[in-house]
Amino acid sequence: MTDISALIAGIAEELRFADNRGKVANYIPPLALVPDTRFGMAVVMADGTVHTAGDAEEPFSIQSISKVFALTLALGAVGDQLWHRVGREPSGSAFHSIVQLETEHGIPRNPFINAGAIVVCDVLLGRLQPREAIGQMLRFVRELAGDDTIAIDETVARAEQDGGFRNKALANYMRAFGNIEGEVDLVLGTYFHFCALAMSCRQLAMAGRFLMGGGVSDGHRVVTEKRARRINALMMSCGHYDNSGDFAYRIGLPGKSGVGGGILAVAPGIASIAVWSPGLNASGNSQLGQLALERLVQRTGWSVFEPRLSQGL
Amino acid sequence: MTDISALIAGIAEELRFADNRGKVANYIPPLALVPDTRFGMAVVMADGTVHTAGDAEEPFSIQSISKVFALTLALGAVGDQLWHRVGREPSGSAFHSIVQLETEHGIPRNPFINAGAIVVCDVLLGRLQPREAIGQMLRFVRELAGDDTIAIDETVARAEQDGGFRNKALANYMRAFGNIEGEVDLVLGTYFHFCALAMSCRQLAMAGRFLMGGGVSDGHRVVTEKRARRINALMMSCGHYDNSGDFAYRIGLPGKSGVGGGILAVAPGIASIAVWSPGLNASGNSQLGQLALERLVQRTGWSVFEPRLSQGL
Amino acid sequence: MTDISALIAGIAEELRFADNRGKVANYIPPLALVPDTRFGMAVVMADGTVHTAGDAEEPFSIQSISKVFALTLALGAVGDQLWHRVGREPSGSAFHSIVQLETEHGIPRNPFINAGAIVVCDVLLGRLQPREAIGQMLRFVRELAGDDTIAIDETVARAEQDGGFRNKALANYMRAFGNIEGEVDLVLGTYFHFCALAMSCRQLAMAGRFLMGGGVSDGHRVVTEKRARRINALMMSCGHYDNSGDFAYRIGLPGKSGVGGGILAVAPGIASIAVWSPGLNASGNSQLGQLALERLVQRTGWSVFEPRLSQGL
Amino acid sequence: MTDISALIAGIAEELRFADNRGKVANYIPPLALVPDTRFGMAVVMADGTVHTAGDAEEPFSIQSISKVFALTLALGAVGDQLWHRVGREPSGSAFHSIVQLETEHGIPRNPFINAGAIVVCDVLLGRLQPREAIGQMLRFVRELAGDDTIAIDETVARAEQDGGFRNKALANYMRAFGNIEGEVDLVLGTYFHFCALAMSCRQLAMAGRFLMGGGVSDGHRVVTEKRARRINALMMSCGHYDNSGDFAYRIGLPGKSGVGGGILAVAPGIASIAVWSPGLNASGNSQLGQLALERLVQRTGWSVFEPRLSQGL
Repeated sequence: MTDISALIAGIAEELRFADNRGKVANYIPPLALVPDTRFGMAVVMADGTVHTAGDAEEPFSIQSISKVFALTLALGAVGDQLWHRVGREPSGSAFHSIVQLETEHGIPRNPFINAGAIVVCDVLLGRLQPREAIGQMLRFVRELAGDDTIAIDETVARAEQDGGFRNKALANYMRAFGNIEGEVDLVLGTYFHFCALAMSCRQLAMAGRFLMGGGVSDGHRVVTEKRARRINALMMSCGHYDNSGDFAYRIGLPGKSGVGGGILAVAPGIASIAVWSPGLNASGNSQLGQLALERLVQRTGWSVFEPRLSQGL
Repeated sequence: MTDISALIAGIAEELRFADNRGKVANYIPPLALVPDTRFGMAVVMADGTVHTAGDAEEPFSIQSISKVFALTLALGAVGDQLWHRVGREPSGSAFHSIVQLETEHGIPRNPFINAGAIVVCDVLLGRLQPREAIGQMLRFVRELAGDDTIAIDETVARAEQDGGFRNKALANYMRAFGNIEGEVDLVLGTYFHFCALAMSCRQLAMAGRFLMGGGVSDGHRVVTEKRARRINALMMSCGHYDNSGDFAYRIGLPGKSGVGGGILAVAPGIASIAVWSPGLNASGNSQLGQLALERLVQRTGWSVFEPRLSQGL
Repeated sequence: MTDISALIAGIAEELRFADNRGKVANYIPPLALVPDTRFGMAVVMADGTVHTAGDAEEPFSIQSISKVFALTLALGAVGDQLWHRVGREPSGSAFHSIVQLETEHGIPRNPFINAGAIVVCDVLLGRLQPREAIGQMLRFVRELAGDDTIAIDETVARAEQDGGFRNKALANYMRAFGNIEGEVDLVLGTYFHFCALAMSCRQLAMAGRFLMGGGVSDGHRVVTEKRARRINALMMSCGHYDNSGDFAYRIGLPGKSGVGGGILAVAPGIASIAVWSPGLNASGNSQLGQLALERLVQRTGWSVFEPRLSQGL
Repeated sequence: MTDISALIAGIAEELRFADNRGKVANYIPPLALVPDTRFGMAVVMADGTVHTAGDAEEPFSIQSISKVFALTLALGAVGDQLWHRVGREPSGSAFHSIVQLETEHGIPRNPFINAGAIVVCDVLLGRLQPREAIGQMLRFVRELAGDDTIAIDETVARAEQDGGFRNKALANYMRAFGNIEGEVDLVLGTYFHFCALAMSCRQLAMAGRFLMGGGVSDGHRVVTEKRARRINALMMSCGHYDNSGDFAYRIGLPGKSGVGGGILAVAPGIASIAVWSPGLNASGNSQLGQLALERLVQRTGWSVFEPRLSQGL
């Protein structure tokens, strides 16, 4: 297992002085302040060992990665009923596009674009008050990660709320089609708090163990094996906005990115991986994060598209 | 291995009298003539054993499944240069949509939609005459399948050519952007001949072995391991038009469908699978073919999103 | 001039029992309550004579016809600066479409679709508080019509505000592009009050005199001749949403419709015309209102596309 | 009437050395060769007097202006049946856009965009061979202009045919929807010959007399008054691609432009006007041509949106 530690230390070293680091998100002030020199990586293996490199203990805004946890909670609450209100197909367009909502009558293409995640929040608020839903989310990720220090960054949540006009447009637009039932402000308030979760690479990789483990995390079943498999499939198809195909092509793992520069990736049965580097590529995904994962997968053969070695050829 | 034979025999039996069989493609007469009662399935395991059920020996029009073989040939001819002329992202729209070409200036989203496959043909014709390219394709699938009886159905090819106005529109449109270099009629003639390849489930599953085997088929290297992995990734992201996300969600295998009702699916390191049932769902993919694959994967755990058992949890 | 009175009385009579009356708008309750049997018409001639028929004295919700008056006020406030924030081209899509805003970066196509009129309100609020802007509008139409009894229907305004999610989406979306500067709720509150203006056919035709008279109404100059001509041109190009071309084709007069079933039409130098019938056609314009205008123009030769008789041929 | 001669001589003089002359079309070589210094103008008054300025006798490629004559012939052939196959609404997009055809199932928005004019040609070929249709068109414009020297520039027609991939795409695409019935190559061959008509400003203004005269040209009735009025309305709504609204706003006359730099404009009952300057603005309309018309209308009060002086105010 020292291999993995050495491997990711090597990758971190290679990327430390990379020239093309992408562009830090600047649509809200708290994100724009994060230095683009940060780089962290954490890998939790199926046997429970944890490997870290770089700034793996520093919390960052997980942003859209929270959509994975919100989806998991919503599926727990209403099951496959969810799919009447949100699709499972890649969007073929940018993360905040509203065009598709017009042609498809207010049904977002998948739960990992903003519109879809807002519907997911609305589903959670069908049974809970915003404060309860936010509390539930916080307890959920703390349990998944086994770490009670995980918190929501209120500065980020407020900043999202002060801007966020495009998300307000999306939510009002879906409400016009009847696909948002709650008060738009409450739904978005909840959504923005989810996005403002602050987690370190270590915490994030720990929280992703249930997706590596067929639904089981640290010996406890979180979701059924089938559901874990399906969430992984959605992360593969739709986890990186209009860059999802390229991510599958280069890396070959289910993954979900956030504009804070984090990526959670899952090698089913093998490892849960988190990487963080704040600079984003043109599609809004971490520039160095993708590169680091590409190297990790190239060197380990963890891509789900590799032949499974155990069965031999 | 008797297990697999019994398993797919059981699935064939279950689906024999299924009510909702989808709708047989009728845009050209030869396809419309195929009875919707046909159902075949073939599984080639990594150890070389072959299992079949139903009408697995009857050739059918593989149509868009040929796009996988054409892509493989084009990558062999020009390598990653190909990606300057075609993307790697799911399209978010129907298989013959022209809208995306206008907004993205004649660059198709991926090689598995019609526009992308037409560009792939044009790339092959950069070095070959149409007759040569068609001959090369025929030799290639015969070698992959180890079966010299595979042929092109000229009736189908001619019928495609007599209609095919939408594909003519796509090709002329891309030529207006400079992304088709050859004569439109020659490029489309080649494309239609590829689509008219007639293969049985057995032949198709045999031909797919190189994608199961990390690029190796029957002991011979066809493509590098990396390229095999990447073609698998593209099949996962883009193999089923605007139903690709749902296919990943339900089945979790790289796959490519055709309007003839065939599907080629790959369980890397485990099996190459072909299934055929002519009735199509609303997205143009085989209705019972998808259902058969869903049951196969559910019962075998072959989804790439399942934990790899060998590594344990 | 008795001719005109007799003419419109005849048209009203012909349409009184028309079968196909269109569908009364039902997106807010107060509009849905209006009986589809209502029909009114008023014509004010250049010499000041007024002719009415049917329910010409009954106030109705002028809705989008208010966009003409709002545009006039905004041009008075900021002049041609307005055109940096809104276009002058027909939209080629439905009145509440948001698609165009995405591809054209938050600049609405013209001031007569909802998005454009919301920008117009935002422009007015650059110098006024909402209450002042609403007061200014009320004074403006009262002066134009020479009738101090014109009022805003607060029930309608509130109903618009309670629904109106699509307009909230449009406003937030444009604010995301920086093309709305004020608070979205205040801008929309103002917009909804403008829409809720209640006027009779007589009042509306009187208020339209300045567009008939080259900018002069009742001897007073309201706008320059050039501006009057240009507002007429915009009404011709964009006054009936995605039915504007057909309106020009059939009727050949500048006009503006509202979902309350009213239409204001202008025959420059000849007449200002208002017609009202609550049932709408598929494009959201008054079904019988259009028919009445078509008959009026056919019988009078008032189309701007007729040869000007005075110059002879 | 000397006034008009002096007036347009003045405008020609003002624009002779204009800096911003737009960009000459270069998509086919014969058009690219035309010097951007050319400028011509011709005005035919209702009384038959003709006024010219600049290069008014030099033939140029009228290109899309031919769509007006083709529409007139098609309406003569099939009447209002035509409107089942083509719309009457402005397109809200560029002249060669294919997007709208997908969403509206192969029905072009109006007869003045390329797709619509191709349908118009197909309608004419329902009764005639291509050679006959081209002959009919040539006879028609010669009669309208009273000038038998008008000819088709075969060099232009061939150049259009050698390129023209976008038009081939449009035609094949509409054929896929069943809205082109003839052979695509024959329809386009006819269309390209219409576009290749070469006419001088004098000839064009003469040919437009029937639209000025309520359907009557030189004492002969060409179309009914109603049809003349309606063709004028279509030219107002749709005559300048996605610049039609702006043309109405600035100039206020029915008009039709071509990429050869010509514009035909009609002041009903007053004048038929042709202007030519090869440099185009961003929307593909003659830069100086529009400017010249704007000045002419400003100085004469010929806009259809001016009050009709004879009726007084």
